[in-house]
Amino acid sequence: MPRLKKKLRSRKSGLPPGALVHIGDIKTTTPTLTLIDYSPDGFSERELPDVAALDALPRGGGVRWLNLHGVHDAELLAAVGQRFGLHPLVIEDVLNTDQRPKVDDYDDYLFIVLHLYDIGRNRGDVTTDQISLVVGRDFVLTFQERPSGTFAPIRQRLRAEKGLLRRTGSDYLAYSLLDAIVDSYFSVIERLSERAEGLEEEILGKPQPSTLQGIHVLKREVIRLRRTLWPLRETLNTLCRGDAGFFRPETQLYLRDVYDHTVHVLESLEDVRDLLNGLLDVYLTTLSNRVNMEVRTLTVVATLFMPATLIAGIFGMNFHFIPWLDQPLGFWQALSLMAGVGAVMTAVFWYRRLLR
Amino acid sequence: MPRLKKKLRSRKSGLPPGALVHIGDIKTTTPTLTLIDYSPDGFSERELPDVAALDALPRGGGVRWLNLHGVHDAELLAAVGQRFGLHPLVIEDVLNTDQRPKVDDYDDYLFIVLHLYDIGRNRGDVTTDQISLVVGRDFVLTFQERPSGTFAPIRQRLRAEKGLLRRTGSDYLAYSLLDAIVDSYFSVIERLSERAEGLEEEILGKPQPSTLQGIHVLKREVIRLRRTLWPLRETLNTLCRGDAGFFRPETQLYLRDVYDHTVHVLESLEDVRDLLNGLLDVYLTTLSNRVNMEVRTLTVVATLFMPATLIAGIFGMNFHFIPWLDQPLGFWQALSLMAGVGAVMTAVFWYRRLLR
Amino acid sequence: MPRLKKKLRSRKSGLPPGALVHIGDIKTTTPTLTLIDYSPDGFSERELPDVAALDALPRGGGVRWLNLHGVHDAELLAAVGQRFGLHPLVIEDVLNTDQRPKVDDYDDYLFIVLHLYDIGRNRGDVTTDQISLVVGRDFVLTFQERPSGTFAPIRQRLRAEKGLLRRTGSDYLAYSLLDAIVDSYFSVIERLSERAEGLEEEILGKPQPSTLQGIHVLKREVIRLRRTLWPLRETLNTLCRGDAGFFRPETQLYLRDVYDHTVHVLESLEDVRDLLNGLLDVYLTTLSNRVNMEVRTLTVVATLFMPATLIAGIFGMNFHFIPWLDQPLGFWQALSLMAGVGAVMTAVFWYRRLLR
Amino acid sequence: MPRLKKKLRSRKSGLPPGALVHIGDIKTTTPTLTLIDYSPDGFSERELPDVAALDALPRGGGVRWLNLHGVHDAELLAAVGQRFGLHPLVIEDVLNTDQRPKVDDYDDYLFIVLHLYDIGRNRGDVTTDQISLVVGRDFVLTFQERPSGTFAPIRQRLRAEKGLLRRTGSDYLAYSLLDAIVDSYFSVIERLSERAEGLEEEILGKPQPSTLQGIHVLKREVIRLRRTLWPLRETLNTLCRGDAGFFRPETQLYLRDVYDHTVHVLESLEDVRDLLNGLLDVYLTTLSNRVNMEVRTLTVVATLFMPATLIAGIFGMNFHFIPWLDQPLGFWQALSLMAGVGAVMTAVFWYRRLLR
Amino acid sequence: MPRLKKKLRSRKSGLPPGALVHIGDIKTTTPTLTLIDYSPDGFSERELPDVAALDALPRGGGVRWLNLHGVHDAELLAAVGQRFGLHPLVIEDVLNTDQRPKVDDYDDYLFIVLHLYDIGRNRGDVTTDQISLVVGRDFVLTFQERPSGTFAPIRQRLRAEKGLLRRTGSDYLAYSLLDAIVDSYFSVIERLSERAEGLEEEILGKPQPSTLQGIHVLKREVIRLRRTLWPLRETLNTLCRGDAGFFRPETQLYLRDVYDHTVHVLESLEDVRDLLNGLLDVYLTTLSNRVNMEVRTLTVVATLFMPATLIAGIFGMNFHFIPWLDQPLGFWQALSLMAGVGAVMTAVFWYRRLLR
Repeated sequence: MPRLKKKLRSRKSGLPPGALVHIGDIKTTTPTLTLIDYSPDGFSERELPDVAALDALPRGGGVRWLNLHGVHDAELLAAVGQRFGLHPLVIEDVLNTDQRPKVDDYDDYLFIVLHLYDIGRNRGDVTTDQISLVVGRDFVLTFQERPSGTFAPIRQRLRAEKGLLRRTGSDYLAYSLLDAIVDSYFSVIERLSERAEGLEEEILGKPQPSTLQGIHVLKREVIRLRRTLWPLRETLNTLCRGDAGFFRPETQLYLRDVYDHTVHVLESLEDVRDLLNGLLDVYLTTLSNRVNMEVRTLTVVATLFMPATLIAGIFGMNFHFIPWLDQPLGFWQALSLMAGVGAVMTAVFWYRRLLR
Repeated sequence: MPRLKKKLRSRKSGLPPGALVHIGDIKTTTPTLTLIDYSPDGFSERELPDVAALDALPRGGGVRWLNLHGVHDAELLAAVGQRFGLHPLVIEDVLNTDQRPKVDDYDDYLFIVLHLYDIGRNRGDVTTDQISLVVGRDFVLTFQERPSGTFAPIRQRLRAEKGLLRRTGSDYLAYSLLDAIVDSYFSVIERLSERAEGLEEEILGKPQPSTLQGIHVLKREVIRLRRTLWPLRETLNTLCRGDAGFFRPETQLYLRDVYDHTVHVLESLEDVRDLLNGLLDVYLTTLSNRVNMEVRTLTVVATLFMPATLIAGIFGMNFHFIPWLDQPLGFWQALSLMAGVGAVMTAVFWYRRLLR
Repeated sequence: MPRLKKKLRSRKSGLPPGALVHIGDIKTTTPTLTLIDYSPDGFSERELPDVAALDALPRGGGVRWLNLHGVHDAELLAAVGQRFGLHPLVIEDVLNTDQRPKVDDYDDYLFIVLHLYDIGRNRGDVTTDQISLVVGRDFVLTFQERPSGTFAPIRQRLRAEKGLLRRTGSDYLAYSLLDAIVDSYFSVIERLSERAEGLEEEILGKPQPSTLQGIHVLKREVIRLRRTLWPLRETLNTLCRGDAGFFRPETQLYLRDVYDHTVHVLESLEDVRDLLNGLLDVYLTTLSNRVNMEVRTLTVVATLFMPATLIAGIFGMNFHFIPWLDQPLGFWQALSLMAGVGAVMTAVFWYRRLLR
Repeated sequence: MPRLKKKLRSRKSGLPPGALVHIGDIKTTTPTLTLIDYSPDGFSERELPDVAALDALPRGGGVRWLNLHGVHDAELLAAVGQRFGLHPLVIEDVLNTDQRPKVDDYDDYLFIVLHLYDIGRNRGDVTTDQISLVVGRDFVLTFQERPSGTFAPIRQRLRAEKGLLRRTGSDYLAYSLLDAIVDSYFSVIERLSERAEGLEEEILGKPQPSTLQGIHVLKREVIRLRRTLWPLRETLNTLCRGDAGFFRPETQLYLRDVYDHTVHVLESLEDVRDLLNGLLDVYLTTLSNRVNMEVRTLTVVATLFMPATLIAGIFGMNFHFIPWLDQPLGFWQALSLMAGVGAVMTAVFWYRRLLR
Repeated sequence: MPRLKKKLRSRKSGLPPGALVHIGDIKTTTPTLTLIDYSPDGFSERELPDVAALDALPRGGGVRWLNLHGVHDAELLAAVGQRFGLHPLVIEDVLNTDQRPKVDDYDDYLFIVLHLYDIGRNRGDVTTDQISLVVGRDFVLTFQERPSGTFAPIRQRLRAEKGLLRRTGSDYLAYSLLDAIVDSYFSVIERLSERAEGLEEEILGKPQPSTLQGIHVLKREVIRLRRTLWPLRETLNTLCRGDAGFFRPETQLYLRDVYDHTVHVLESLEDVRDLLNGLLDVYLTTLSNRVNMEVRTLTVVATLFMPATLIAGIFGMNFHFIPWLDQPLGFWQALSLMAGVGAVMTAVFWYRRLLR
């Protein structure tokens, strides 16, 4: 059962703003800094022991991409922030892994927060990772809660010698990262659709009480995902309008494409939600139908047997003078009477549309 | 049962943007290129073996309309794209048959994505085809997933010597194509309405469990269609506002008409949806009514027979001294007692409004 | 049962735009042309045999109002269109009686589409007529599907010598016509309210299965009317903003009044809708209440008679040694036991709040 | 039961606009004209026999407030309208007591329509009075359907020699009147809240069928009030924006306060509505719970007594050879069997979670 | 059970605007005035006996923060208002503890109203305190209904010598206060989430009638909180847009952060609401499921025992000639017949899907 978001945010109440406190679970043991420098002509990739190591590295005219796995080390983050001249609020937001997606424009750089979703095949098997991006004129910083394969293809494309990615600036890199994240939502949607359709089959076939819980859980996951995607859509829309001037017009064309994908994901999610709501209706109606059928069975049984039982009881009374008792066919007459009464009553109810 | 949209979009995750991968089912075996050149004075129509064949054809001052059936051949599409100077994202979107309707303005041309719907008379018999249009100053490209008769009347009108269509530019041709597509929605709506009214008759007459599934399936189809039509409405609205300058004011007047039709289709769809929602209510209430009637029957049966059975049981006890047993009319007294008790109980329940 | 709107619009698919095809039922046999010319000084009213007759009539400086009953004659309409220089789309829209309310601004004239509603006292007795208005600088054209009394008072006021109507221009005439149409909605609303309140009385008194259908049908009519009124509201709002300059400021003041009336009609319609929704809730709850009461009756009956029947059965067994059988008061003891057990069980259930 | 708004508006259909016809109930016998003239230095208050009496009264530099109780006298209203140069539509709107709240800006004066609500402690005991205000540069006209105490405190404050009210212009008087009207809504809301909470206690304690009707009626009253308050909010918002220039900036500050109060009233109304909706849910669920409990009782009774009755029946059969019949403890063995079977069945059902 | 907001606002009807009347409960006995003066260089904190004491205190160039606990003393508030040149409406709003959150811009200062929420672990244990802020160029006034620890950390940070808070102006102090208030909502949300999840466990485990009331009560609290948070969000949004110029651009960056937090709180609240709505559905369906199971049990019992009882009755009749009676195995034949009939009926119903 997925829990409501509750990352002990209250732990921070009373602290001054900009106080660097990590909020959330620690998902990786030691933070890892990876630096990629690239330009149309060159490419270098190295793991850094600490932020200070950056000073030793010469800065060419290319784009610098610093990626950090593990965001619970407040000191390390503060050092990164200072090195790149980031506002304290940015570092605070990176530390707090319970942000909603947003884009903040700090004249010299853009700060973007997104989430990576992963939903397993089983119920409640959901993981969320916050990814923060800082996009400067000639650098991009990415902060992830734990290593994930999402950015691997981009690194691969950078390593390959040719391609648009190497020739263009930090804005295109940022776009590629955003694109990779949004694309990963498609498989989440597919997994959700599969589970919804599994539930649909169950309900149209043989619904069980556990099916209901399945719908309940899936609905909550959909609602949760939706709540993340709406601000993401807004965020990408803001980037597309591009007042900040960080994204060149050519790149903005691509951003619009990412925005379209997000809208598409959201609509597929609405499809799942509508399906689930429809299923709940079908389930409830099927239940009612079933009660209906069983009450009818009960009525038929009672209608057939109660009169007959009464007749048997009547001829079982111990009066001295009861008609038919001494007649040779009395017994069979009584049985016929039972059958007759049952038939007549059933016919009457049938005719008055009570039993069909 | 219509499946949720799921065209294995995820297959593309990790590829660079603009990667030309076909997403969707392949609906026609060999792609067909058809070229129509027309001007007020001339008209020519020919099938092309490949894109290179275009180079051999002289270009007059008229309008060129290139139509392609079958969009799974990425190479062919790339060739078309290069020939007409299209942006890689356009070709990517043509290949991906899971787009939502949209219009993108690339300075030199407009790129429009729409869908063609067809709903059969039977449940779940739905086919969707994506149609992409590229509208340039003097050319129009159309990409369809498979041959359809939708554009046949337009070709017919072009072949005929006179008419507004031949005298005007590519914008009027584009309008005519859009109009043909939107008009085809009217018959889809009619088919849906018919099915909805069939279900209504079933429910007001003799509802069955399968009726419920019918509503469920139809509702899903309506929701799906609606999800396509809303962005289509937006798209046409964007074209009507016509900031791009591709459509001349005279043609914009006609576009506004197409826009009105789309709104009309959407409203008819809402009618169907409202009808279906109303039907669900009626169905559920009819079910409750029915349970009600049957519980009442059961109550009547029990109220009449239980007391009588008890009386019969009482006079069937083996006590040595039981009143009435030896009286000649004892039996008939007992029967009267049974009838009397039943009558009194029924009267009491009737009076207290329990049985009516 | 009102049918969904379905006027075989699809009949037109594939035809060129502007194709003059009548869509809808033919509601009057021969079209009638009525011409009224008026100015502060003069007034003339005549029926015309055809459009050509207009040429013979001198044109003063006053306002010309041409009214046409019956819109299925495409040729006649085309002639009118040509005579007054109307755009082909206008004539197409007049012929298609399945338009939604709208106003189109063609520099030289405004084209307005509205509907006249009439709802009889019986279910489903609904008639809709489309009324199209063309408002020029010094003329007004009205197209109606069949004769109706709606415009009679206006003609009457024009015939009377004095009054604002005669002294002002075509815009005030157009306003008067709109006002007459909108005012006619008030009686429709009253009729709907009456029927809704009739259903309310039925439900709070003695609900029947037919009541449910009554609600269903009325709801559909309300939804249908609402769908016409919303675009009408928009249309009037557009006219009020009056960018087109067809309505002089003095007249715009009056238009705002018509707009207020439309809003008022819409809100009354919402009242009816809310009432109907509330009724459905009350109906369903009343049903549940009733099932509840009957299940309770059944429980009481079973609780009282089943134990007693068992006791009777026990003393009816044929064992040789059964206590009490030989005692003179055994029978009465058994009866007391039955009554006692019934009383105790009823008391227990009562105490545990099961039967109250 | 409150009726839907239905003041025979249709009575007016077909009349020319501006036709002076009273719509609504006549709530007071003779109209009363009261005139108050005040300035920082002087104050006079007199009842006028007719409008002509105004001519005899000298006009100082102060503010003139003319109040009229009773709005069914069309002639009197026409005279007032002419005396103060009002537009015919204003007088028409004053006569029609079925207006929705609005503000109309006629260059020389503002025309404001509001409603006074009063809800008694009993169901359906609702009265609505329309109050129309005309606010000129140096005069205020108020038209009420019947005398009410709402404006008494304002008159009192005017009579008192000092206070802001006497020193400021007609705009501040208008504000004070609006404030008095909006403030009166607070007690309406309190009354509604009390009734809603009364229903809540009933439902959480001992719900009865009449409770349901109580909710239904209260809901309708809330919906009705809400429908009046929304346009009132709009109206006050329009006044606050104050494009007309009738309200000086100092007064606009106060108007904003009245606007805040209206929003507050609306939100409290939403609270009541939410409470009522919640109550309906609780009521329905309580009902279901109860049916549930009673069906369970029935099941327990049947499960315990049916097998026992069967056993008694078996030993009551008249076969010559039935085991146990001749044994001295046979009777007690049979009773034990009955108890045993009942116990086992109850245990089985209990274990399978059917009876708990 | 939380009551609807009802602070006897009507007590004020009829009084002139700006009348200083306290509305609400008195939550502290004697009002306390606390003054803090600070600048980068100095800090002083003292409790004041009355407002006049302010005159004796020299005013440096720093920021002055006057805090008042207890807002029921109208005279004291009027004195404060006069001392700082506040508008009468401000003091009126401070006295009325039933305000909705808002920000009013009075050229020389901003007036902000907020609420402090506290929800205990038990049902209905909710306390709301209104906090009013007046933010001037170099002073901040805070009015609280009773002492709370919310501002303690800020006082602490001021007392500490260094920190941004001491170096910046009144706008940053105001921001810090707003931040402290909004942060306190996080713990409220956590408490609500805990209670919601407690209810979820109850419902998925063993639902009880009291669970329903728990949902009802919690829903009302959520709705109430939501109604406070929406205008708070608006208020903060207004401050962020910062047209008033009270907040310097650096501080506005921080305000945007507070705004983000509010949005976050609201979304978590929506999560709780969605969860509660989902729970209600699950609860209702579980109930239906249960009725279903019990009706089935009843049907099984009746189907098995009624035919058998009839057979026993038949062989218990007193006819002289009944087959089997004299056969040695008659009794066992009868029992077999009973078992057989029961088995056949159960099989039939099973096959016709009535009992599964």
